[in-house]
Amino acid sequence: CPYTNPFHASPDPIHAWTAQEIATLQARLDKQLGPEYVSSRAGAGGAKVQYLEAWKCINIANDVFGFNGWSSSIQNVHVDFMDEAAGRFSLGLSVVVRVTLKDGTYHEASSSSQSLLISGCRAKKEGTTDALKRALRTFGNVLGNCLYDKAFCKEISKVKPANPRFDAHDLYQRPEYPCIPALP
Amino acid sequence: CPYTNPFHASPDPIHAWTAQEIATLQARLDKQLGPEYVSSRAGAGGAKVQYLEAWKCINIANDVFGFNGWSSSIQNVHVDFMDEAAGRFSLGLSVVVRVTLKDGTYHEASSSSQSLLISGCRAKKEGTTDALKRALRTFGNVLGNCLYDKAFCKEISKVKPANPRFDAHDLYQRPEYPCIPALP
Amino acid sequence: CPYTNPFHASPDPIHAWTAQEIATLQARLDKQLGPEYVSSRAGAGGAKVQYLEAWKCINIANDVFGFNGWSSSIQNVHVDFMDEAAGRFSLGLSVVVRVTLKDGTYHEASSSSQSLLISGCRAKKEGTTDALKRALRTFGNVLGNCLYDKAFCKEISKVKPANPRFDAHDLYQRPEYPCIPALP
Amino acid sequence: CPYTNPFHASPDPIHAWTAQEIATLQARLDKQLGPEYVSSRAGAGGAKVQYLEAWKCINIANDVFGFNGWSSSIQNVHVDFMDEAAGRFSLGLSVVVRVTLKDGTYHEASSSSQSLLISGCRAKKEGTTDALKRALRTFGNVLGNCLYDKAFCKEISKVKPANPRFDAHDLYQRPEYPCIPALP
Amino acid sequence: CPYTNPFHASPDPIHAWTAQEIATLQARLDKQLGPEYVSSRAGAGGAKVQYLEAWKCINIANDVFGFNGWSSSIQNVHVDFMDEAAGRFSLGLSVVVRVTLKDGTYHEASSSSQSLLISGCRAKKEGTTDALKRALRTFGNVLGNCLYDKAFCKEISKVKPANPRFDAHDLYQRPEYPCIPALP
Amino acid sequence: CPYTNPFHASPDPIHAWTAQEIATLQARLDKQLGPEYVSSRAGAGGAKVQYLEAWKCINIANDVFGFNGWSSSIQNVHVDFMDEAAGRFSLGLSVVVRVTLKDGTYHEASSSSQSLLISGCRAKKEGTTDALKRALRTFGNVLGNCLYDKAFCKEISKVKPANPRFDAHDLYQRPEYPCIPALP
Amino acid sequence: CPYTNPFHASPDPIHAWTAQEIATLQARLDKQLGPEYVSSRAGAGGAKVQYLEAWKCINIANDVFGFNGWSSSIQNVHVDFMDEAAGRFSLGLSVVVRVTLKDGTYHEASSSSQSLLISGCRAKKEGTTDALKRALRTFGNVLGNCLYDKAFCKEISKVKPANPRFDAHDLYQRPEYPCIPALP
Amino acid sequence: CPYTNPFHASPDPIHAWTAQEIATLQARLDKQLGPEYVSSRAGAGGAKVQYLEAWKCINIANDVFGFNGWSSSIQNVHVDFMDEAAGRFSLGLSVVVRVTLKDGTYHEASSSSQSLLISGCRAKKEGTTDALKRALRTFGNVLGNCLYDKAFCKEISKVKPANPRFDAHDLYQRPEYPCIPALP
Amino acid sequence: CPYTNPFHASPDPIHAWTAQEIATLQARLDKQLGPEYVSSRAGAGGAKVQYLEAWKCINIANDVFGFNGWSSSIQNVHVDFMDEAAGRFSLGLSVVVRVTLKDGTYHEASSSSQSLLISGCRAKKEGTTDALKRALRTFGNVLGNCLYDKAFCKEISKVKPANPRFDAHDLYQRPEYPCIPALP
Amino acid sequence: CPYTNPFHASPDPIHAWTAQEIATLQARLDKQLGPEYVSSRAGAGGAKVQYLEAWKCINIANDVFGFNGWSSSIQNVHVDFMDEAAGRFSLGLSVVVRVTLKDGTYHEASSSSQSLLISGCRAKKEGTTDALKRALRTFGNVLGNCLYDKAFCKEISKVKPANPRFDAHDLYQRPEYPCIPALP
Amino acid sequence: CPYTNPFHASPDPIHAWTAQEIATLQARLDKQLGPEYVSSRAGAGGAKVQYLEAWKCINIANDVFGFNGWSSSIQNVHVDFMDEAAGRFSLGLSVVVRVTLKDGTYHEASSSSQSLLISGCRAKKEGTTDALKRALRTFGNVLGNCLYDKAFCKEISKVKPANPRFDAHDLYQRPEYPCIPALP
Repeated sequence: CPYTNPFHASPDPIHAWTAQEIATLQARLDKQLGPEYVSSRAGAGGAKVQYLEAWKCINIANDVFGFNGWSSSIQNVHVDFMDEAAGRFSLGLSVVVRVTLKDGTYHEASSSSQSLLISGCRAKKEGTTDALKRALRTFGNVLGNCLYDKAFCKEISKVKPANPRFDAHDLYQRPEYPCIPALP
Repeated sequence: CPYTNPFHASPDPIHAWTAQEIATLQARLDKQLGPEYVSSRAGAGGAKVQYLEAWKCINIANDVFGFNGWSSSIQNVHVDFMDEAAGRFSLGLSVVVRVTLKDGTYHEASSSSQSLLISGCRAKKEGTTDALKRALRTFGNVLGNCLYDKAFCKEISKVKPANPRFDAHDLYQRPEYPCIPALP
Repeated sequence: CPYTNPFHASPDPIHAWTAQEIATLQARLDKQLGPEYVSSRAGAGGAKVQYLEAWKCINIANDVFGFNGWSSSIQNVHVDFMDEAAGRFSLGLSVVVRVTLKDGTYHEASSSSQSLLISGCRAKKEGTTDALKRALRTFGNVLGNCLYDKAFCKEISKVKPANPRFDAHDLYQRPEYPCIPALP
Repeated sequence: CPYTNPFHASPDPIHAWTAQEIATLQARLDKQLGPEYVSSRAGAGGAKVQYLEAWKCINIANDVFGFNGWSSSIQNVHVDFMDEAAGRFSLGLSVVVRVTLKDGTYHEASSSSQSLLISGCRAKKEGTTDALKRALRTFGNVLGNCLYDKAFCKEISKVKPANPRFDAHDLYQRPEYPCIPALP
Repeated sequence: CPYTNPFHASPDPIHAWTAQEIATLQARLDKQLGPEYVSSRAGAGGAKVQYLEAWKCINIANDVFGFNGWSSSIQNVHVDFMDEAAGRFSLGLSVVVRVTLKDGTYHEASSSSQSLLISGCRAKKEGTTDALKRALRTFGNVLGNCLYDKAFCKEISKVKPANPRFDAHDLYQRPEYPCIPALP
Repeated sequence: CPYTNPFHASPDPIHAWTAQEIATLQARLDKQLGPEYVSSRAGAGGAKVQYLEAWKCINIANDVFGFNGWSSSIQNVHVDFMDEAAGRFSLGLSVVVRVTLKDGTYHEASSSSQSLLISGCRAKKEGTTDALKRALRTFGNVLGNCLYDKAFCKEISKVKPANPRFDAHDLYQRPEYPCIPALP
Repeated sequence: CPYTNPFHASPDPIHAWTAQEIATLQARLDKQLGPEYVSSRAGAGGAKVQYLEAWKCINIANDVFGFNGWSSSIQNVHVDFMDEAAGRFSLGLSVVVRVTLKDGTYHEASSSSQSLLISGCRAKKEGTTDALKRALRTFGNVLGNCLYDKAFCKEISKVKPANPRFDAHDLYQRPEYPCIPALP
Repeated sequence: CPYTNPFHASPDPIHAWTAQEIATLQARLDKQLGPEYVSSRAGAGGAKVQYLEAWKCINIANDVFGFNGWSSSIQNVHVDFMDEAAGRFSLGLSVVVRVTLKDGTYHEASSSSQSLLISGCRAKKEGTTDALKRALRTFGNVLGNCLYDKAFCKEISKVKPANPRFDAHDLYQRPEYPCIPALP
Repeated sequence: CPYTNPFHASPDPIHAWTAQEIATLQARLDKQLGPEYVSSRAGAGGAKVQYLEAWKCINIANDVFGFNGWSSSIQNVHVDFMDEAAGRFSLGLSVVVRVTLKDGTYHEASSSSQSLLISGCRAKKEGTTDALKRALRTFGNVLGNCLYDKAFCKEISKVKPANPRFDAHDLYQRPEYPCIPALP
Repeated sequence: CPYTNPFHASPDPIHAWTAQEIATLQARLDKQLGPEYVSSRAGAGGAKVQYLEAWKCINIANDVFGFNGWSSSIQNVHVDFMDEAAGRFSLGLSVVVRVTLKDGTYHEASSSSQSLLISGCRAKKEGTTDALKRALRTFGNVLGNCLYDKAFCKEISKVKPANPRFDAHDLYQRPEYPCIPALP
Repeated sequence: CPYTNPFHASPDPIHAWTAQEIATLQARLDKQLGPEYVSSRAGAGGAKVQYLEAWKCINIANDVFGFNGWSSSIQNVHVDFMDEAAGRFSLGLSVVVRVTLKDGTYHEASSSSQSLLISGCRAKKEGTTDALKRALRTFGNVLGNCLYDKAFCKEISKVKPANPRFDAHDLYQRPEYPCIPALP
């Protein structure tokens, strides 16, 4: 039976979700975020800005679509400007990221980030992460679109999240370790 | 049975809506927007300008076409000019975005945005969002084309939207959270 | 059964209209525009110039061909010149847009627009819209070609359009809104 | 059954006219133009120059080949020169347009147009229209080739066209308009 | 049944003429031109130069091969030089045109034309027409190759063409015109 | 039945001559030219140079291979040098032409021509014609290779050609001409 | 039977995991890391920063997906800036790495690293390794995403890992070595 | 039955000679040249240099392989240097030619030629011819390789060729010529 | 039966290991290295650095995957900088190497090496070898990943390897040598 | 039956030698050269250098593989340097040649040659020939690899070749020559 | 039966060795070199450096894989630097060579060589040969990898090779030579 290298680009994507799977996915995507997903920081003018941390956004995507249900790629990176102030240079970068679902649906988004040259390395990493988040949010409320809704933000800020649980017996362990260590 | 990587470009799109699905979609696209979708701001000369917020536009697209019924991509980004006034630089950018439906129909639109270099990063993000909205509106009234109709704008501005509901028990929650917190 | 990503370019378009559909489409395209589609403004030398607003042109295309019966793309954008007068710069841009029907028929048209740099962002958006209109008009009278006929323009300017109706009960509404608000 | 995106380029055009359709088309293309299609203006040296207006040429093409019987594309646009006279700049542009019939037959033609920079935007639009006309005329007499025949021009200039009819009851109307307005 | 966009390039041309069609075509192509096709102008040194007007050449091609029996394309356009004399600039352009028959046979030819910049626009249009004629003549006598034969030219210049007929009742007319006008 | 656009390039040429056709073609190609095909002019040092005029060469190719038995294309054009003498510029151009037979056999040849800029336009046209001749001669004696044989040239120069016949009744005539004119 | 070179890119990846394999993989990817995988160093401001060493990350990937379950490639390398301080130059590099699973799922990430030119060689190697880690972490908690969760980091830092075992009798040995050496 | 354009490149050459044809061809290629094919000129230092004239080489190729048994193309042309001596410029050109047999066997060779600019045109034509000869000689003795064998050259220079025959009654004649002229 | 050139790239790799082969390979790759594979040198600050010599790494790869189980290619080579100190120049190079297994799995790695220009040639050779090693180590412990584990390094440095055996009777010998020479 | 142009590149070479043919070829390739193939010249330091003349190498290739058993192409030509000494310029060129056998096996080699500009033309021709020889020698002893074996060179230089035979009656003769001339 | 040009690249290599052939090949490749293959020269610091001469390496490859079992190509050539010392220039070149086995396995290696410009031509030839050797050695011990093993080198340097045999009666001879010459 013919076998083909799975690591290479295919011109014929053939995975399709069933109607039921699509309905389930749509329902999850339409949900608004629970309070444990909503972080906040002070924005311009002291106002509170609500946002979704990137690692949570990735976890939601892996949860909703499955780890092999979505892919991401960096379409391009562009240095938009170099700025100099008081002898310190800063770098403005923008990154375009594409997120593709396994039935071929995709969204692209761009980020722009700026940082001092001295810590210039952060701009690109942060920009990539930011663009990833922006591309994911286009898929619906649960991936962050709900946080652009001021009415929702106002309500959710009134809800307090519970504390998360931690179970040391359910961790990923190296095989050469004889047993799971007791909690200190 | 042959399996192909779903994340890659296919030269043979094969999804087609049935005649009934098309009729349903057309009917929804022909609808004009309810008052809760119409925002307004002061435009040039103090006149009231009505518009559709981007997150609402994305939600409508996800609602009308389904989350896997449309895709978007950034075709190109172009710096149109650099302007200097009183020692402050501003950047003029344009972005072309393509929206593709799952039967292959597509529209492209361009945006142009301008911002101070100091906040230069906003120009690209905003431009992408604006072009996305402009491409979506080409699909019909419900995605924003109705707001170019002055007669409609005049009527809709007379209608007051009801307040939206918020249900804290229907949120997306992290699995490690034991239960949904009570409303404060 | 094989499934292919519908969002990607296909080398084998296979949709064809039946002879009857073509006849219906041809008849609609041959029609001249009713008075409610014809706007007018003062042109060079004070003469009245009749034209079709872009949002109406898009609505006609969606009506005649269906929302998934036509696509549009921006083939290229070109800065033709930069002009300076009295310390103010203006930008001359041209945009080529292609409109494609779902049986593969297409027309391309170019626009040229010019605006002050300060409002430079308008040039590209307006140019795209203008080129879209010019490409659509090549399909026939109803998409704007009739307005180049001076004899028709003279006649239609004598006809007064009726007032459009507005029905607040037939709008597209957000699901979380309990009911359609009463008219004020 | 396989379905393919109709909006994309196909390497395998398969439409062919029947022998009878070809004979009908050939007969129509061989016809010379009636007087209502022939406009005239003063040319170099005061001589009367006869020509076919672009909108009429488009209407004839839509009539002879059908709205989906021909396509047009802008192959390239080229700035040939910039000229300066008395502080006013003018721009010389040329445009190559291709017209393709649905059996694959095609002709390309180029135009050249020149205009002041201040109205520079006209050069490209006019050049595109002019090249479209020149490509269409290669298909035969009825699309304008007959107007290069001086003997025909002399005869047709002796014929007076009748006045066109206008029927306000057969216009394309917006659905939300209750009824066709009475003629004033 | 599969349908493919007829407007796009095919890698597999499949039309072939039958042996009888080829013989008929060959016989027509071998013919020398009648006197009504031969124009003459004064050449270098006052000698009479005989030539075929472009519109006649196009009509012969449409007649011999049929309107859908041949295609033409502009392969490239090249500015060969800019010349200045007494403050007036002239432009030398060359154009390569390809003529393709429907069984795939093709010939390419180049033209070179020169004109003052002020009327620079003519150079490209005329060059395209000239190259089209040169490519067509490669197909045989009837498309102009016979006019390079000095012996033939000498004989044909002795023959006077009859006057052409003009029939106002067999013209292409706009449908909204009630009837064909009487000859003045 | 599938139909494909005959005007486009095919990756699969499939015409082959039969063994008998090849033998006939070979025999004709091996023939040396009759005296009516051989022109002569004074060459360098006053010596008589014998050559084949281009229009005759084209006619032989159309006769031997048939009008649809060979194609020609301009592979590239190159300006080799610009030379200036006594204030007059001359241009040196070379052109590569490919001639392809319908079974796929091909030969390419290059020409080089030089002319004053003032008549610079001739260089490209002449170069194309010259390269066409050089490519054709590679197919054998009858297409000009025999004229490189000094022994043959010496013999053929001794043979006088007869006068050609001219028959005014066998010309290609415009259909609207009532009858063939009588000879003057 | 047909055989194809396995070392070359295939357009048709066909490996797919079964539903059960996917569930197993998802469960492993969702796990948080055991304490023996978590290293820590002092970060900015003296705070303890927890991280996953690259060699461990590679071993987890080989363990979870299998050695032939994932591939990695360097999409591009870019020098972002050259900086000079006190006569010493430092180099800022960014690297984009793509990790592809054998069913075609992929993620791309970029790193940025900076080092003195004198040790400039480190920047690229470290950047590649860093980007590889960042791309892997997008697949879920176990590949490092859990370390962005501050709550988890706080808990895991309280757990002490056991000491790893070392078994000298289970090493990979050269065949020409007669026997496994005794432990010293 | 499918028909494909014979003038275009095929990715699938399928002609193969039979074993017997190959043996015949090999035997002819292995032959050394008769004295009528060997020309000689004075080389460097007054030594006699033996060579094969290009037109003979072409005739041998047409004789051995048949007119449709081999093709030739100009792979590239390169100006190697410009040299100036005593105010006269000379041009050094090299040309790469490929000769392909109809079973796909090919050889490429390069020539280098040099000439004064004034007669610069010769360099390219001669270089093409020279490279054609060099590529052909790689196929064996009869196409010129034997002339590199000094022992053979010494022997053949001792053999005198007979005089060729000329038959005026076996020439290629224009059809409109009534009869073959008598020899003078 | 069809035969294809085995030396060229295939788009369809079809070799797949069986589940059992994969398990065997995985087990070998997971092994840590025996002491005879571990070399050591003094690193920065006098610390002992353990590493795997390149020729051993190649031998392990040939042993684990088989000589035709893996391929390697140089993706690109880049000069990162030129440095000058005390009149001596040194060159910083980086090389990206890809290692591909025969089922298509691949890893890429980059090296950076630096050397004096005088011995500049070493940089590229060493860089290629280093990148090859780094790409191979990504496949698991046995190809060098275990040497990044400090705990393992500490243990293995305590183990002494035995002396290798040398058998002069099992060498690869030239056929024209009559017999294997006796050991000295 | 399908026919394809034999002169074009095929992606599917299908010729394969049988096992017996391969054994025969291998045996011939393994042979060392007889003395009549070995030429010698004085090398650096007066030492005798043995080599194979190019025309002999070509004849061996035609003999071993057959005239249609191998092809050669010039992959690229590169000017490595221009050198000036005492007002005379010399040119250093390198040429890469590929030799391909008919089962697809290939080897590439490069040459470097240097000559005065005045005789610059020789460099490219000689370089091509030299690279052809170097590529051929990679196939084994008989194509020149044996001459790198100093032991063989020493032995073969002791062997004297016999004189070759010349038979004037077995030459390739022009058909128009009545009979083979008698030897002088 | 279909026939395809064997000289062109195929996308579908189909040769595969049988399991037994692979085992035989692996065993030969694992062998270390006999003393007659090992040359030595003085290296840096007077130490003896052992190496494999290129012509021997090629012979081993032809012996192990067969003359049609492996191919080689020059992937690229790069001038790394130009160095000047005491008015003499030297050139540093690097060459990347790929060796491909007939089942598609390949390795690439780069060389770097340096030589005076005056003998600049050597650098490229030597670099190509060196890279070929380095690529071949990656296939295993017998192609040179064993010479990187210091322990082996020490042992083999103690073994003396026997003298090779030379048989003048088994040489490749020109057919026109009457008989094999007697040994002197």
